[in-house]
Amino acid sequence: MTTYNPVTETFLAQLRDIVGVDGVSTAESERNLHAADMSSHPPHLCDAVVWPTTGAQVAAVLRLANAHGVPVTPWGVGSSLEGNPIPLYGGISLSTERMQGIVAVHADDFQVTVQPGIGYKDLNKKLAAYGLFFPPDPGANATIGGMLANNASGIRTVKYGASKDNVLRMEVALADGRLIHVGSRSIKQSSGYDLLHLFIGSEGTLGVITEATLKLTPIPALMSAVVASFVDVETAVTAVVAIKGTGLDLAALDFIDGSTAAMLTQENGVDIPAQPTLLMEFHATHAETIELGLEMVREICVEMGATRIQATADPTERQRIWHARHQTYETKLRLNPGISWMPMDVAVPITAYPALVVFAEQEMAAKGVSGFLIGHAGDGNMHFTLAYQDKESHERAKEVNTAVIRRAVDLGGTATGEHGVGIGKAPLMPYEHGLALDVMRQIKQTLDPNSILNPGKIFPKL
Amino acid sequence: MTTYNPVTETFLAQLRDIVGVDGVSTAESERNLHAADMSSHPPHLCDAVVWPTTGAQVAAVLRLANAHGVPVTPWGVGSSLEGNPIPLYGGISLSTERMQGIVAVHADDFQVTVQPGIGYKDLNKKLAAYGLFFPPDPGANATIGGMLANNASGIRTVKYGASKDNVLRMEVALADGRLIHVGSRSIKQSSGYDLLHLFIGSEGTLGVITEATLKLTPIPALMSAVVASFVDVETAVTAVVAIKGTGLDLAALDFIDGSTAAMLTQENGVDIPAQPTLLMEFHATHAETIELGLEMVREICVEMGATRIQATADPTERQRIWHARHQTYETKLRLNPGISWMPMDVAVPITAYPALVVFAEQEMAAKGVSGFLIGHAGDGNMHFTLAYQDKESHERAKEVNTAVIRRAVDLGGTATGEHGVGIGKAPLMPYEHGLALDVMRQIKQTLDPNSILNPGKIFPKL
Repeated sequence: MTTYNPVTETFLAQLRDIVGVDGVSTAESERNLHAADMSSHPPHLCDAVVWPTTGAQVAAVLRLANAHGVPVTPWGVGSSLEGNPIPLYGGISLSTERMQGIVAVHADDFQVTVQPGIGYKDLNKKLAAYGLFFPPDPGANATIGGMLANNASGIRTVKYGASKDNVLRMEVALADGRLIHVGSRSIKQSSGYDLLHLFIGSEGTLGVITEATLKLTPIPALMSAVVASFVDVETAVTAVVAIKGTGLDLAALDFIDGSTAAMLTQENGVDIPAQPTLLMEFHATHAETIELGLEMVREICVEMGATRIQATADPTERQRIWHARHQTYETKLRLNPGISWMPMDVAVPITAYPALVVFAEQEMAAKGVSGFLIGHAGDGNMHFTLAYQDKESHERAKEVNTAVIRRAVDLGGTATGEHGVGIGKAPLMPYEHGLALDVMRQIKQTLDPNSILNPGKIFPKL
Repeated sequence: MTTYNPVTETFLAQLRDIVGVDGVSTAESERNLHAADMSSHPPHLCDAVVWPTTGAQVAAVLRLANAHGVPVTPWGVGSSLEGNPIPLYGGISLSTERMQGIVAVHADDFQVTVQPGIGYKDLNKKLAAYGLFFPPDPGANATIGGMLANNASGIRTVKYGASKDNVLRMEVALADGRLIHVGSRSIKQSSGYDLLHLFIGSEGTLGVITEATLKLTPIPALMSAVVASFVDVETAVTAVVAIKGTGLDLAALDFIDGSTAAMLTQENGVDIPAQPTLLMEFHATHAETIELGLEMVREICVEMGATRIQATADPTERQRIWHARHQTYETKLRLNPGISWMPMDVAVPITAYPALVVFAEQEMAAKGVSGFLIGHAGDGNMHFTLAYQDKESHERAKEVNTAVIRRAVDLGGTATGEHGVGIGKAPLMPYEHGLALDVMRQIKQTLDPNSILNPGKIFPKL
């Protein structure tokens, strides 16, 4: 295993030379604020928090850290769910908090160039004036840098793609202090190796994203929502396949299980039967198109045996449904004091969804683990969220998670659809990727030979 | 520069052990058939053509070639436009012609798994039975392997994305004989480094794609076409921006210049004024949606000063328009015997399109080069196609091309939107990528240390 050097007074002085006296802190309060994310992975303290303000400063910090063998873990806002920004080996927590600038709005090109520290919700508020938005929506106000580093996505990915599909160009600081530009502002690019996508989703282990030009989408003129309940998951998935097969351009296609539907009905102002339920959304430029789409979806759902269908083009009603859906996790937390929750993030081809749900339920029953299921059914992403309350039940939940991940991989899927590998899924990487993991290691070794960038993530310990 | 070893009798015998006696040829007729693509780059003969039938055979051929220091250049069908499959250093032309199998149709997952040698048009014919198609459409019946290696795209990329956006998983043979799997059959993937996109567009210089699982799209129920003529390019582009801003989901948005419009009118059965013209297509599930979309586009084009607008939902009429558009190059060839044509492939942010057109026209005038302009205006991709008839005029055309590429890069764009780097654009790579080109070289060196894979492409000579 790589060994690292401690952060010395000399090193701190050199850091201050780069980012200014205010740009470095070793205060315990600050180090505590950068020790954990939203996952259940235990916190770990860095030795110093550093707040650069420019790409050049980030590059200089990396060059220095590389020369001194000090690890660097990038930090957005700590909203990730797999321990991705926890500074496992101490060293520097490199915060992008002071890099929240909008560098340029290219409204007529449907693009914006930003620094990595801006929250995507904050960005979208500002872009509303241009009638544009950045579509990936992981929920929490994640930073753009964090979203790109994890290839985050959300409920509307089924239409607009994941983070990786909405970026054109990035500035990236490498471990040795080089500052490079990858991609271009052209939508079509066929020019050499796709380094853009190599850095996206690399969770800060290959470089630090210091600027990004994002692809924007016009804010839809009209939206509608459909809530359809089914007797079982299998029937619901048959409806998903049929709806996708029409060519109707779904903007969201989420799934909740019966217990979640019941909870949201009781607590969050919606009225959904306690059955497996699809939540759908459509975007269009004309009311007639919305109506025709709703009718088509209604027909399919009836044909597939839906027990109840609610459709609405009313914005308030639609927002109520999605607000309730987004409150699922918080509501669970509130109703179950003392319980912690571990979200799965497996994703499979859509036809494998029912088999995976059945398998997960069997594993949970066998291990005595309870949980609830929400997921982005439209793209096969499944978030069983497992309850635990102590070390022992946490271990059982982890066992279930591991078994379900292996099953998802067997079904042609992946360990993680949108949360990234981080700490928790690293041990499963050999199972998912086989020999390709060696290639990932070779690339890591090539670009970060001293392994200073976010060590302990993605790769299992050798 | 790397030096390579000759193909010896012993080596040929070892090749035959892998692919069988019928799988290797040193006949001049075969070597001639694998010496050139559709570009103007001079042909170069390989020493032997090899036809593997499986991924394992491809891997074994690469392992052998790597051990012997013999270069390997993958070959699809030779439809590329930048010399990408020309075996510049001899050695093996690795043809995928005997790898045309459909491995599995996952219709309800909207996926198909294929071998790399199948033509995308042949594939789409077979997929029609399932109501599905693979959307990227470069025109010629390119192989899937070639399309992925070059990240090919076409007129419908504005809606459906490029090749890179329509692949989920690949099997890839590496230079050292490892056979790896990258990606998964899940639509969402956030699991480790995005090796899938590293190999896509790498033009066979990092590995050979031996199998791919493609993302499919339901065949649209209804299509319509709009042809709108404008007084100048700038006005046409203003209309493009306005149409994209509505959120209307354009399926194609092409541009032709006045001389091309006149030629197609005279020769190809359409009636388009000799003016800068936009060719558009929309897909929808309902006739009403088509009508509303056409009306909206008509209004915008009128407002932007279109001099003539023709809209049709009639399939025969629509096909006539696109057929004429696709015949542009062949018609130019037929009408101008003795003239050769060099296609540019620059792409820029859409607002830079008019400036780039003006610049290209000025350069052509200054250098005495004539040509015509077609392009995928919806995504900023510009194909000025330059005429030449001898070495001297070819040189002048190349000078124009180089100047326009540099200008495109200055405008935030790229040297190549869809043809790839190949031979012709390699010298421009330092200008476009700067330090990032060094990173590409590092990755090349890591995965192909003996540089046996498609040498002479992408990277300029050191």
